[in-house]
Amino acid sequence: MSYAKLESTFRRIGHLDHAVAMLEWDEAVMMPAAAGGERAEAVASLYGLRHQQYTQAQLQDWFAAAHEEAKAGSLQDLQQANLREMHRTWQRIVALPQDLVEASKKAESASEQAWRGLRGKNDWEAFRPKLEAVVALKKEVAAALGSALNLSPYDALIDGFEPGMRCAEIDRLFADLGAFLPMFTEAVLAKQSQESFEQPQGPFPVEQQRALGLRLMEAVGFDMAHGRLDTSHHPFCGGVPTDVRITTRYNEGDFTSSLMGVLHEAGHAKYEQGLPRSWAALPAGAARGMAMHESQSLLQEMQVSRGAAFLRFATPIMRECMPEAAARSPAAFTVENITRLSTRVRRGFIRVDADEVTYPCHVILRYEIERGLFEHKLTVADIPEVWNQRMQELLGLSTNGNFKDGCMQDVHWPAGLFGYFPSYTLGALTAAQLFAAAKDQLPGLEDEIAHGKFVLLNDWLSKHVWTKASLYSADEILKAATGSSLSTAAFKTHVQRRYLGD
Amino acid sequence: MSYAKLESTFRRIGHLDHAVAMLEWDEAVMMPAAAGGERAEAVASLYGLRHQQYTQAQLQDWFAAAHEEAKAGSLQDLQQANLREMHRTWQRIVALPQDLVEASKKAESASEQAWRGLRGKNDWEAFRPKLEAVVALKKEVAAALGSALNLSPYDALIDGFEPGMRCAEIDRLFADLGAFLPMFTEAVLAKQSQESFEQPQGPFPVEQQRALGLRLMEAVGFDMAHGRLDTSHHPFCGGVPTDVRITTRYNEGDFTSSLMGVLHEAGHAKYEQGLPRSWAALPAGAARGMAMHESQSLLQEMQVSRGAAFLRFATPIMRECMPEAAARSPAAFTVENITRLSTRVRRGFIRVDADEVTYPCHVILRYEIERGLFEHKLTVADIPEVWNQRMQELLGLSTNGNFKDGCMQDVHWPAGLFGYFPSYTLGALTAAQLFAAAKDQLPGLEDEIAHGKFVLLNDWLSKHVWTKASLYSADEILKAATGSSLSTAAFKTHVQRRYLGD
Repeated sequence: MSYAKLESTFRRIGHLDHAVAMLEWDEAVMMPAAAGGERAEAVASLYGLRHQQYTQAQLQDWFAAAHEEAKAGSLQDLQQANLREMHRTWQRIVALPQDLVEASKKAESASEQAWRGLRGKNDWEAFRPKLEAVVALKKEVAAALGSALNLSPYDALIDGFEPGMRCAEIDRLFADLGAFLPMFTEAVLAKQSQESFEQPQGPFPVEQQRALGLRLMEAVGFDMAHGRLDTSHHPFCGGVPTDVRITTRYNEGDFTSSLMGVLHEAGHAKYEQGLPRSWAALPAGAARGMAMHESQSLLQEMQVSRGAAFLRFATPIMRECMPEAAARSPAAFTVENITRLSTRVRRGFIRVDADEVTYPCHVILRYEIERGLFEHKLTVADIPEVWNQRMQELLGLSTNGNFKDGCMQDVHWPAGLFGYFPSYTLGALTAAQLFAAAKDQLPGLEDEIAHGKFVLLNDWLSKHVWTKASLYSADEILKAATGSSLSTAAFKTHVQRRYLGD
Repeated sequence: MSYAKLESTFRRIGHLDHAVAMLEWDEAVMMPAAAGGERAEAVASLYGLRHQQYTQAQLQDWFAAAHEEAKAGSLQDLQQANLREMHRTWQRIVALPQDLVEASKKAESASEQAWRGLRGKNDWEAFRPKLEAVVALKKEVAAALGSALNLSPYDALIDGFEPGMRCAEIDRLFADLGAFLPMFTEAVLAKQSQESFEQPQGPFPVEQQRALGLRLMEAVGFDMAHGRLDTSHHPFCGGVPTDVRITTRYNEGDFTSSLMGVLHEAGHAKYEQGLPRSWAALPAGAARGMAMHESQSLLQEMQVSRGAAFLRFATPIMRECMPEAAARSPAAFTVENITRLSTRVRRGFIRVDADEVTYPCHVILRYEIERGLFEHKLTVADIPEVWNQRMQELLGLSTNGNFKDGCMQDVHWPAGLFGYFPSYTLGALTAAQLFAAAKDQLPGLEDEIAHGKFVLLNDWLSKHVWTKASLYSADEILKAATGSSLSTAAFKTHVQRRYLGD
């Protein structure tokens, strides 16, 4: 059966991905620095073998025959989903000529390297030609993908991160948010300026922070038999579903950034750990796109862990894990104060430091610029001016001449990741919509959370999201779980309740 | 050029080996236990891809053409050595029919699993049929290899671990040792029974032991920019030459076992780290067989680190790293006492716990049994009786009915590793011969060591062993370094001086 041959090929690819995921985790967490050169070559060879697997001449025939097998009714639902996902992945790979892929990789690698040096120097003019080279090649990539998939070029890029999502839909959602957020932020800032905050006084020893992070990530359902917590320069969630490796970094002067980071990554990890184990290393058994993934981390961090119910449970544990700090500033370690600190809104330049209220503004302006580039309405040279203008409109901040904290702050564009940014905010909207539905369908849910009980929530997420893997589209999963397609309504209700008490 | 095609194929294989080495290190050191199933499948896929690379149909033609290129003088020395090593590896792989390889793997896996459960129960009768299945298949493997390589079956197995080494040579060396050691051991035990030993009193905290191990392994030349020290259940040296991962385990009641283990693995590691970096992932750039590898660990541990010169340097550092223990038993922490403790000889059942004087006896009896099996002079059923008899002759100990501490103690046979045991003692002989030559050629070497200076020794080893990699045979390397082929002379002189002061 051709389907079976495809499945076995993709299982082998999944195993190569397993190796690459672990080597990349190792590189970030364990590897001595001087070992990087040989490691890079080894990983490149694995990618090469992976590409060979994808581009075997027989695959074309196997796909044609497997589609016939599907029409003849000889495939089960899971196999059909698997065939669809395998075909989707394969189509994107064979759509691109090898020389274009290699030229892109080279330009992206040069531009990312240049960016690492030039961002600190605020040197946009030296960086611009590198980014122009990346964008020029990415336009060719987008055109080739678009023509193979019958999509507009930018839609073809978005579809790589968020299967089924289209610009037209994002426009609708982002227009609504873009209109709502500036005035709403103004109102929140006015309200919060009347409130008092007590800053906990450090130092918060790394070992205590680590123990606190471990305790809370286990409490919310991270399965330590299938994962680890380690330290790396940039926090991430890596590994494979049977062995999820999350990382954090510690700041002895501020324990909340690491703690909320751990809970965020734990949200990603629970999704991975909750995928159907028997479909491991099969495309239909993988997580359903970047937005759904981000929805699980944001549901854990933003919806749950920064909320008053969770913090009623967690604050005493913070005091217990950091007894010296709690004794130093008892007023800082009250549930009320920790809750206020965890929901503080501030306008800032930097996306990764943004709170949930201002974060979508950072995403919207990047989306608008990307779209402009790929629809030939903007050039790379226009970016700083548009950035400055939209930052002023959305967040009231000028980035005039400040490239470092403006359009040069993210690694995404230098690395060629266009079409990725919308996922962050689509994830935030999805998180709000899922959590609202869970609360509706599960009376007493917040009470359970306040008592440190997460089984009710995790069972619901498992049933409605995790075990669905990529069996259905994101829209189908969301509709089945919440009764409707993605909208801004739940997110707006959430922030209005949390930040204005409406 | 066909040679170049071979080189690039073997480089790719080297990169797959890199991935496997790191995944296996990770499994032993980092991986949560429940992740083992999926990891095993991923590693099996990598082995499968590796096998595919080795068995590509073109390789036969490429080897034929490359041998013509060599004859035509178009290959440099390194390329010729590389061709020889690639061909040697390839020959061993294509000599074996795939169904035999798979049947062996299955039998070995079943037997190793059975052994893990049955050793503790001392249940030889239940284990015997599993081992018989392994041996029956290994005989087929040995016959196939022997006929492809024009060697006797057992020589063909030995050649896999120790290229170029033959039974006839091992017979000669082991007969000599087997005649020398029993009476020599008797004399050492008589002498040591007159000496007094002061046992250092624990506990020795793990963190202090780790700091001590790190300090001494760095002192002897382990390069921390290209490696790590971690903890695992069974100590080993893994990773790749640019990133050597050594492990140890800690016993809070005895710091010497971990410390000497770390120095042993550091000896392996220095060899790997000292291989020519520009030939990384090429067969001629790899270490020259198991005996040469073991010679480097034993030279570091037995020849250097258990010697009085090294311990003059190391004992004050032990006191410094473990101040509480040193204060508890000051008489134990003198150079003289630590030296006596580090060279204590005891007759015991267990090979891995043996000192350097009795260790060869454990190897000799295993070698004799293996040889008997593959020359059809013994059956698996005969093993316990022969074991018991030879243990009595060589070490004066009876293993009658004690299978657990007798013929069931090692993982090697259940795992199908026949032909490996001789390497341990060949390594000990090589270590003694190399260190004797180094002391001859480098006046003042022991003085340097006593002052914690290892550059002289490491430069000598680098020149004579490490940078030679697999460019020459082990015999050529040893002759160039020491002036003669392998013999027992230096080992016997070494133990006579160290243990009887002759």
